[in-house]
Amino acid sequence: MEIDILKRKIGLSFAENGNAEIWLWAPFALSISVLIKASGLKLIMHNEDFGYWFIQTEEIKLEDEYEFEICSADATESDSSKIKYLRQADPASIYQKDGVSGLSTAVNLDAFHWTDQNWKGLLAEDFIIYELHTATFTFNGDFESIESKLDYLVDLGITAIEIMPISQFPGNRNWGYDGVYPFAAQNTYGGPKALQHLVNACHEKGIAVILDVVYNHMGPEGNFLNDFGPYFTNKYQTPWGKAINFDDAYSDPVRDFFIENILMWFRDFHIDALRLDAVHAIKDFSVLHILEEARSYVNRLSAIMGRIYYLHVELDLNDNKYINPHSEKGYGMDAQWLDEFHHALRVAAGQEKIGYYSDFNGIDHLAKSYQDAYVYDGQYSEHRKKKFGIKADENQGKQFIVFSQNHDQVGNRMLGERTSKLVSFEMLKLMAAAVFCSPFLPLIFMGEEYGETNPFQFFTSHSGKDLIEAVKKGRRDEFAAFHNSADVPDPQSEATFNGSKLNWDLLNVGKHQKLLSYYKALINLRKTVPALANLNRNQLEVKAFANQNSLILKRWHNNQQIMCLMNFSAKEQVLPFKI
Amino acid sequence: MEIDILKRKIGLSFAENGNAEIWLWAPFALSISVLIKASGLKLIMHNEDFGYWFIQTEEIKLEDEYEFEICSADATESDSSKIKYLRQADPASIYQKDGVSGLSTAVNLDAFHWTDQNWKGLLAEDFIIYELHTATFTFNGDFESIESKLDYLVDLGITAIEIMPISQFPGNRNWGYDGVYPFAAQNTYGGPKALQHLVNACHEKGIAVILDVVYNHMGPEGNFLNDFGPYFTNKYQTPWGKAINFDDAYSDPVRDFFIENILMWFRDFHIDALRLDAVHAIKDFSVLHILEEARSYVNRLSAIMGRIYYLHVELDLNDNKYINPHSEKGYGMDAQWLDEFHHALRVAAGQEKIGYYSDFNGIDHLAKSYQDAYVYDGQYSEHRKKKFGIKADENQGKQFIVFSQNHDQVGNRMLGERTSKLVSFEMLKLMAAAVFCSPFLPLIFMGEEYGETNPFQFFTSHSGKDLIEAVKKGRRDEFAAFHNSADVPDPQSEATFNGSKLNWDLLNVGKHQKLLSYYKALINLRKTVPALANLNRNQLEVKAFANQNSLILKRWHNNQQIMCLMNFSAKEQVLPFKI
Repeated sequence: MEIDILKRKIGLSFAENGNAEIWLWAPFALSISVLIKASGLKLIMHNEDFGYWFIQTEEIKLEDEYEFEICSADATESDSSKIKYLRQADPASIYQKDGVSGLSTAVNLDAFHWTDQNWKGLLAEDFIIYELHTATFTFNGDFESIESKLDYLVDLGITAIEIMPISQFPGNRNWGYDGVYPFAAQNTYGGPKALQHLVNACHEKGIAVILDVVYNHMGPEGNFLNDFGPYFTNKYQTPWGKAINFDDAYSDPVRDFFIENILMWFRDFHIDALRLDAVHAIKDFSVLHILEEARSYVNRLSAIMGRIYYLHVELDLNDNKYINPHSEKGYGMDAQWLDEFHHALRVAAGQEKIGYYSDFNGIDHLAKSYQDAYVYDGQYSEHRKKKFGIKADENQGKQFIVFSQNHDQVGNRMLGERTSKLVSFEMLKLMAAAVFCSPFLPLIFMGEEYGETNPFQFFTSHSGKDLIEAVKKGRRDEFAAFHNSADVPDPQSEATFNGSKLNWDLLNVGKHQKLLSYYKALINLRKTVPALANLNRNQLEVKAFANQNSLILKRWHNNQQIMCLMNFSAKEQVLPFKI
Repeated sequence: MEIDILKRKIGLSFAENGNAEIWLWAPFALSISVLIKASGLKLIMHNEDFGYWFIQTEEIKLEDEYEFEICSADATESDSSKIKYLRQADPASIYQKDGVSGLSTAVNLDAFHWTDQNWKGLLAEDFIIYELHTATFTFNGDFESIESKLDYLVDLGITAIEIMPISQFPGNRNWGYDGVYPFAAQNTYGGPKALQHLVNACHEKGIAVILDVVYNHMGPEGNFLNDFGPYFTNKYQTPWGKAINFDDAYSDPVRDFFIENILMWFRDFHIDALRLDAVHAIKDFSVLHILEEARSYVNRLSAIMGRIYYLHVELDLNDNKYINPHSEKGYGMDAQWLDEFHHALRVAAGQEKIGYYSDFNGIDHLAKSYQDAYVYDGQYSEHRKKKFGIKADENQGKQFIVFSQNHDQVGNRMLGERTSKLVSFEMLKLMAAAVFCSPFLPLIFMGEEYGETNPFQFFTSHSGKDLIEAVKKGRRDEFAAFHNSADVPDPQSEATFNGSKLNWDLLNVGKHQKLLSYYKALINLRKTVPALANLNRNQLEVKAFANQNSLILKRWHNNQQIMCLMNFSAKEQVLPFKI
């Protein structure tokens, strides 16, 4: 199977003549059949090169539910002539109507009537990102309900929403990082059509859409990829189990699987940017790193579609190889999350120096991050117990995404407290300003703009008893050193999930209303003041005053100069400066 | 501890005032003492930054035997106040007089009286390499005995010997890849002084010395590094167990340990080149790959010493990032082994296409390797089950090392048969010519030049019963699919080792004598004919005739042209060619 930039092949699609076509990779199978629920038919697939199976058929109609029957030799039997039959949904399923253990549904993604022709996309430097989690963003918790908030978001001034992972996960409560069907938009969120509808609506309102995708591991429940082929490798370990097989034997079809996935989001869902989760956990020693290969495919799609598609990465390596261009032997990612800016900012704002915060001294490091992006660019990190990072002098401001909180920084606290519960109202405003006055791309986490007080806690809705216990225990163990384990919220409890929803009633309440106005004004400044909007890292000076826990940030553009005075102390401070 | 390019710090060395200085890394130790055997003294070391321990003392004299006492909290006890004491030799021991489980001996490497001032080193393109295994090369099997063969080697025409790994391994019979003291030259070979003496003698005879070193794993017996610190990581698996910790927490001192090792061989042993074993198994996701960092240290040493030090690598990746220069974001290794040339050549010469040979079609692939170095430079490899390699058009001929056999290709056969036992006498000559007429650096394996008939089998002299059984079983399992396990030579048996020694008596016997003369003539041609000696890959044309299993290789330099006609078939062939 060769990737076709213009059309998804893997999984089920509909040809122009209305026939269904299915490509499946199962290199060790003796035979593969498609079982169609409605008709009860069983169709034999054809064996193609490189372990692929193919079928073109009139027998599968739109909305038909189907699964595969995999016939293979049973390796657990000493008698190798013993064969076994397994039934599983499509690894590249577009829709899992009944969740991870249900059948796949035949969907025609081309059927959606797009009306976003006027949407021209966003320039790389214009991203003002609003990260949201579909199920807790609104009361109903689905794609459709997000649409009801778009006018609010336009009014706020953000230019892009970033949707936490929506690939089919078990149950209806999950951050999204336990997804197991990378091509299937979560059923309880409304599935693929509702996602297309949402993106279309965003574009009509002038909002770009970033989708968070997870290519470094699969969730622990409903992951049957190994029944089809060696999607995983024993060569590497990730914090979440076996690494995905990007460079071992049989890795080509695995790579193509994820490249098809990337192309689908851009091409068939009109997604503007992907945020690739934790790419440091993607272990790939191939001559061409999977991210580099993905970049080249995305560029080809861009050229054909006349649209820019962005690849943002979460990266815990301070290694600008990932964001450097191909001409510099980089992987060519457009931008990366800059967690170190966050850590320095939080410590400046009073965060206790525990865990990964222990590496950060606050104001001096915040100044360094304004200046150099990476705080650790070669120094010894006490927390990591090694020298860390490299200079990123040549990288542009628009290549770094900064924030004062995000889903992880909030939700990975034991109680999931948002910053609004941890610092004063004045400090909240200062932290927001620190982000929006930076020469980087700002990101806010849903509800931050009005000081939401509900927590964002870790929640799941797994179905296996053992797994539920294991997740609960894992969570308790994580905080065992600091807290009484009884205090750790139960991830599986529905109350934990419900308590993490935004409370939109706050919008009209006192300080919350004020904070929202402040964010609007800040975003407006960011967009309209050239010295702020222009992300040239060379037109910037910063000076930290450690004793005063204060900082002066000067930025300029043409003849305009702007001076940002940030006082993180609780007292009035007198700082020496000349304009 | 900061690395000093000009002086080894790690382990024990002698200062100019005669005092002994010891640096040891043991980040989790509560205290460290040095125990001196002769005096019975116990000296307390000082705790320095980053988990290092240091002492300068008059109490340790030359030839003193010593070990460390590591005092640490016993993690296996629930009562963390329980402490334990462990005694171990120096991880950076220079000499293990009594083997891997004995004490370390205080050696002064600076005491050797070098007389190789006239040795100017070798140009990168002038390497004609003779790979040898110390214990089986001569009857006595030590460094000193190698010296007795130097005149023979000079007469043969080789320019460099490559010594298989000599870092202290268990017992006295081992290929060397089970070494556990990277700084200690094997005691049964004569230890560090004898190695210095050998290198000095080589240089006086005009022969360069390449040392094979292993930085991808440690042997299974006598490896106590973990008693000192986290030298290994669970993040990656190698075929030989846990990977060495080059990028995990605490990796800086581990990296420095191996960089110190590299610098020592060049600086204190006058080694000309290192051959780094299986660098594809060195897993390092740091911003600066350990090979790149080593390169920069070696370059600094070169600049100071006014000598070129080469880094050759064994590499099973077809990824020229390893040999590309720093300016191209490469790791800057000088040359790599080109196993694919060997595989193609062997298949052309009749080798059955099993195992890794299955990827090679013989003559066409041999032609491709002459032309492109890498046979697989992006194509799908059936054996590896994935696309493999990248184009190496910009790399120079002197960056590739080729051979018709080597220790691995001989010894990894079940019976360890040399090529002389597998092909005809005429084919032996053709295979040699194929190597020496290539635009790459030629390597021959000891005894190849006179058609040694003894095998080179896999042998060990471990001491643990379980380990001995495990190694034996592993060897049997490896060949189980093809052979009766009873036929697998016992690695632990002394007979296996003795039977693998060279039989120098053959030198004066018929065909062997002839073959030797042929090799001499070939090497002489290689050195004196500019069209052969000049390794410009652009001045080369090659044409394969698959049906005739023949090949024409044309090489030229200035006005000189040379035509190599290679007929790997058993018949006379008529080939069309024009000059």
